[in-house]
Amino acid sequence: MFNFTLRPRRNKSAETAKERLQILLAHERADGESPDYLPMLQKEILEVIQRHLAVNQDHVEIKIDRERDISALEINIEIPGPAAKA
Amino acid sequence: MFNFTLRPRRNKSAETAKERLQILLAHERADGESPDYLPMLQKEILEVIQRHLAVNQDHVEIKIDRERDISALEINIEIPGPAAKA
Repeated sequence: MFNFTLRPRRNKSAETAKERLQILLAHERADGESPDYLPMLQKEILEVIQRHLAVNQDHVEIKIDRERDISALEINIEIPGPAAKA
Repeated sequence: MFNFTLRPRRNKSAETAKERLQILLAHERADGESPDYLPMLQKEILEVIQRHLAVNQDHVEIKIDRERDISALEINIEIPGPAAKA
């Protein structure tokens, strides 16, 4: 069972200039043998995001979890907020 | 607070030939005025998926939720499993 909660930032002021983008991809397969699409989707979805947002690779965190029928991929990206860019 | 749980299918046998892809995008903004990236990301991420998977629009479910600082987009896609394609 995959559970994903977007935790609001504890210390609002210190991180006010930053924004967060969180992406969860979960693929529930019919049986354990069918292909796992997540690696390919991960690469192309990151490319989509990088086309539109200034993404610093140091601020990209990727977690992958695989069970028999389900694979899940969590991507956390910290992006400079409007104040940070000005 | 956004909470997203991938619920395993109740009746495994009836839906064995189908697979599910679930995508959650959550954008936590620095302040309520910064742009909302989700509509643009939704379009392009669906295009990525459709490039690689046979997606029937009738089997795509999209939920959007907006609060002051956080927007969340949930995309649920039922895709034909290997047995269904053969």
